[in-house]
Amino acid sequence: MGGDYAPHNVIAGAIDALRETNNRFEVLFVGPQSIVNAELSPVQYNGFTYQVIDASQVVDMHDSAIAALKQKRNSSITVGLALHKEGRADAFVSAGHSGAVMSTSTLILGRIEGIGRPTIGAFFPSERGVCLLLDAGANVDCKPQHLYEFAVMGSIYTSEMFHVKNPTVGLLNIGEEESKGNEVVKEAHKLLQQSNLNFIGNVEGRDILQGKAHVVVCDGFVGNVMLKFGESIPGFFKSRMKQVMKKSLLMKLVGALTRSTLRAALKSMDYEEYGGVPILGVNGVSIIGHGKSTPKAIKNMVLKAEEMVQKKINHHIQEALAGAAHA
Amino acid sequence: MGGDYAPHNVIAGAIDALRETNNRFEVLFVGPQSIVNAELSPVQYNGFTYQVIDASQVVDMHDSAIAALKQKRNSSITVGLALHKEGRADAFVSAGHSGAVMSTSTLILGRIEGIGRPTIGAFFPSERGVCLLLDAGANVDCKPQHLYEFAVMGSIYTSEMFHVKNPTVGLLNIGEEESKGNEVVKEAHKLLQQSNLNFIGNVEGRDILQGKAHVVVCDGFVGNVMLKFGESIPGFFKSRMKQVMKKSLLMKLVGALTRSTLRAALKSMDYEEYGGVPILGVNGVSIIGHGKSTPKAIKNMVLKAEEMVQKKINHHIQEALAGAAHA
Repeated sequence: MGGDYAPHNVIAGAIDALRETNNRFEVLFVGPQSIVNAELSPVQYNGFTYQVIDASQVVDMHDSAIAALKQKRNSSITVGLALHKEGRADAFVSAGHSGAVMSTSTLILGRIEGIGRPTIGAFFPSERGVCLLLDAGANVDCKPQHLYEFAVMGSIYTSEMFHVKNPTVGLLNIGEEESKGNEVVKEAHKLLQQSNLNFIGNVEGRDILQGKAHVVVCDGFVGNVMLKFGESIPGFFKSRMKQVMKKSLLMKLVGALTRSTLRAALKSMDYEEYGGVPILGVNGVSIIGHGKSTPKAIKNMVLKAEEMVQKKINHHIQEALAGAAHA
Repeated sequence: MGGDYAPHNVIAGAIDALRETNNRFEVLFVGPQSIVNAELSPVQYNGFTYQVIDASQVVDMHDSAIAALKQKRNSSITVGLALHKEGRADAFVSAGHSGAVMSTSTLILGRIEGIGRPTIGAFFPSERGVCLLLDAGANVDCKPQHLYEFAVMGSIYTSEMFHVKNPTVGLLNIGEEESKGNEVVKEAHKLLQQSNLNFIGNVEGRDILQGKAHVVVCDGFVGNVMLKFGESIPGFFKSRMKQVMKKSLLMKLVGALTRSTLRAALKSMDYEEYGGVPILGVNGVSIIGHGKSTPKAIKNMVLKAEEMVQKKINHHIQEALAGAAHA
């Protein structure tokens, strides 16, 4: 188990998931056995359906994804994903090293047939709900076909997990006209137009928060820059508010009210609610959580993993790609 | 003259610039003569140093930049830039069709020696002041050399116009490590490292609002998506606040306070203050304003144009490039 607050938050969150579901499933805690057991000893964790699986090594944030794969074969990431591959687990979730989870998932689980590039997305709040942007950093350079695959996977995920019928798909570009953008997006535009997806054409940077499309596809360079920019907005506002609040006692009061109102207004921006982001396109269910995951985020990540398994997301992806190939 | 509120805002703003500077310079109003004269007739515009130059055609937002160039040779953009080229004007500003101003400026004024690609930037607010991001959409595909040129031009502009000594330059990327990103940014990293610029290495999406660098360079695809995303943030908050305010009368009051506090907190985000964005790299001074420019924005755009001329920004750019070539 990984993340900045492991093992405490991870165990607390997973146990909460078991509590809420009356032990509907079993949790395998993967990590250094003695540390995990020490955290589990308190009496309140009795009666829950879990097991502890030893994995002695820890991938830390300074390891490169490749080094983690090669040198730490006994990390919780590798051991946990191997359990999933062998069928002893139906899904894998981690708040650990994102890059290592991404590459180890692809290596161990393999790709869904027809998928060239597995992807991770990012959830953006929007005026109409949530916008799933993908790729958010796994694939720096993309071919048009990859953008098309992201659209298929994002569309199925959104439809199944967010109960959106026939989700709209937009292609991130610098203008609405077909002729805009670089060669890759121009070609991707054609592929998306010929597809069975609910493709609404190019969307621009402003259309994400405005909620013009449920799913927005782009290469991982643009997506990653956008994701990190988006994550920095609340902190920027906080810092600006502080400066305003310094000016007088009245501004201090107004500022405090503002902050709580802003917090309410931004609730759906809250990563805790989504729990984490799925790696789409691998032969299995693997979810990456935020390094700073709270117990609530971990709980939701576990529940989302169960939901993805129940809803057979990968089966739907495979069907959609096979359908497209026959079309 | 162009923009959504031309000729009124354009004339009012330019006259304000003359008023504030006691007619320190002369303004040439370029546009359909009868319309411009009708707007200028009020008695309050007497005593100001301006002339009206006729340009009968108008480039509208539905024209492509290329079509505007070829088919509307008597537009205010083409006529105004020709006046600048001939030396009858020292600078050109417009709130009209951005694409047409960009391409016509490059065509008529030509490029500064040593510059492969003129660029337009975008000003982002940051926790430490302002961040100039370039390119913001003029150059979709860039070579490493172009990113280097943007860095040189952005650095000189920031140093001269914002009085920042030795501005820091960051390369927008998806991680801090040199090995991150696509081939173009990896090569650009090397060029920037070898330069005389105050290059601080890669910066990520979150570093823009945090103010990690004064100047951030990226290709125009990423920059344009970022610019438009950034512009949509205030509207998104407004829409969210409205939903919160609906809940009760108390929330309505709190919401109203919040909005005014937010407005104060975001003041430096205000495009009116910058007036517009300069096209850097052309042989002249050409500034593009927002289509919805207020008189205040126009006034500031005119004053910035004068300042760019006075400070010989282009001369400094040429010197920097010549110095680099001899280094």
